Amino acid sequence: MADPSERLLRSAAQSVETRRRIAPLIRTTPVLPSRIDLPEGTRLIHKLEHHQHTGSFKFRGACAKLSTLLTDRPVITASSGNHGMACSRAAQRTGHRLSVVLPKVVLPQKRAGIESYGTRVIIEGADSSLSELAARARAEADGLTYVSPYNDAQVIAGQGTLGLEILEQCPEVDNIFISMGGGGLISGIGAVIKSFAPQVRIIGASATNSAALAASIKAGRIVETAHHDTLADGIAGGVDEGSITLPMATEVIDEIVHCDEDQIAQALRLLAWRDNMIVEGAAGLALAAFLAAPERYAGQTSMILLCGANYDQARMAQVLGAG
Amino acid sequence: MADPSERLLRSAAQSVETRRRIAPLIRTTPVLPSRIDLPEGTRLIHKLEHHQHTGSFKFRGACAKLSTLLTDRPVITASSGNHGMACSRAAQRTGHRLSVVLPKVVLPQKRAGIESYGTRVIIEGADSSLSELAARARAEADGLTYVSPYNDAQVIAGQGTLGLEILEQCPEVDNIFISMGGGGLISGIGAVIKSFAPQVRIIGASATNSAALAASIKAGRIVETAHHDTLADGIAGGVDEGSITLPMATEVIDEIVHCDEDQIAQALRLLAWRDNMIVEGAAGLALAAFLAAPERYAGQTSMILLCGANYDQARMAQVLGAG
Repeated sequence: MADPSERLLRSAAQSVETRRRIAPLIRTTPVLPSRIDLPEGTRLIHKLEHHQHTGSFKFRGACAKLSTLLTDRPVITASSGNHGMACSRAAQRTGHRLSVVLPKVVLPQKRAGIESYGTRVIIEGADSSLSELAARARAEADGLTYVSPYNDAQVIAGQGTLGLEILEQCPEVDNIFISMGGGGLISGIGAVIKSFAPQVRIIGASATNSAALAASIKAGRIVETAHHDTLADGIAGGVDEGSITLPMATEVIDEIVHCDEDQIAQALRLLAWRDNMIVEGAAGLALAAFLAAPERYAGQTSMILLCGANYDQARMAQVLGAG
Repeated sequence: MADPSERLLRSAAQSVETRRRIAPLIRTTPVLPSRIDLPEGTRLIHKLEHHQHTGSFKFRGACAKLSTLLTDRPVITASSGNHGMACSRAAQRTGHRLSVVLPKVVLPQKRAGIESYGTRVIIEGADSSLSELAARARAEADGLTYVSPYNDAQVIAGQGTLGLEILEQCPEVDNIFISMGGGGLISGIGAVIKSFAPQVRIIGASATNSAALAASIKAGRIVETAHHDTLADGIAGGVDEGSITLPMATEVIDEIVHCDEDQIAQALRLLAWRDNMIVEGAAGLALAAFLAAPERYAGQTSMILLCGANYDQARMAQVLGAG
């Protein structure tokens, strides 16, 4: 395999440094073997990052970023999902004033969840991409720090701390299955793996209904793709123009597996009924990528990154009851 | 508080010794904080013993017992549930020949699960109490070792290894909530706690529909109670005449909380949708006991022993609202 680029080495080093800094804030999440039936000798292990504070890996990146910023400068972001919750709890801990721009269509319970941490909510924009533009504009006009959910070296290094934990908790790991959204998670973990344990394979799980990063990697440049509704909505969306995750993800990913909604739903059902864990669709997606061809990983140790557990209960109940 | 009896001290010492012996066989299960909304300062932590091998704490007791027996003498027991599965896997590991007597009404998938470990199945008896009598008779006639699911000092010491883990994983624990079946689990953990950390309170969770142990403690002798169908069927049943668990449980339990089926179901729903864990009713029962009066434990650290995750999927889906 090729030597890791300087970009990856720097990100990995930053993850090591970040880990020390955010250790008092984050939870080291456990790993547990799966009970799913597999061929003899095949090991499947879950990383329970859905038990991270705020129920998502995004809390690592948020803590990594905020803990490098002076508290006298307010911070702004735009996300009604995992990133917004993660920044809200992180800001509460670090003492930053945080504003989150939310679209007019935001669900009341999502707004309430973010406000429960003392975050200031600004309603602006008809949808989430317009809210993001508004947040960037306000950051520039008012001298605030804008925190991107993935296109930020410090955020990426924060997610990369997961790679360090995995190598310690499971030194024998052969493959790590990671869902692909904007690419911050897979880039951060991948940089650590390719710098410190390059024989470990990084397998990206891409939802057919929201495959912007996979398509961009294939094209070698940012491309827009149609986004359809997906169970993996926690990671759905496009990739920023000029995002540093595109070259990083391109370098670290050994293989991309495309999964449709049926595969994600089936993975969620196995996680619930065999492994006793209810996780969000983006986490199910990572298992779905393994289950697409488990015979390819026979005799190896594969780790599934269960990235979050924030879901709509009614929708999830429907998915789990259909099995 | 009174000094622990010699009986408790001996059991606790046996747990320490047993833990070293069964360490290569069992899994140290993680603890994780709950996400359930609680009064400020109150901590609720789950012990994820449902991720033990065979999905139940019973595997500890089975390993503890079998690892003290010479392999040239076959072993027999009677249980289509967690104890039968636990003994089957333990025997596979220790190399004992194991027979399990099952009633004629046993479900085919339970029989198949037990046989999958290489266990010999004997069908005898119209119900499980008659199967147990048959197993005891065969043990006596054929010179086999009968393994009780709970009325056995070595089995109890095996379950007690959970107490040692809890004290290490959560030294600040104030209360431990444990479901009451035959009493092996609460006696084993309780002996360790009352010997090594007597300030920690042991709270027994008793299902109203199957309350033989609670009634026997109250009466000061083994009494029979009516058994009704319960979600906590994994721990349902009577208590053996002369069982050593009655004096042990009587000594270690600080408080008994009685929970009905609605409370157990509500606890199972909270575990599933808030804490992302699907566990069996007996595990939900332990949380139900805490939730019956959470204000009593305000400002303290309470641990819920999630004892198992073997359930009927269709019934559980119905309880969770995913049916």
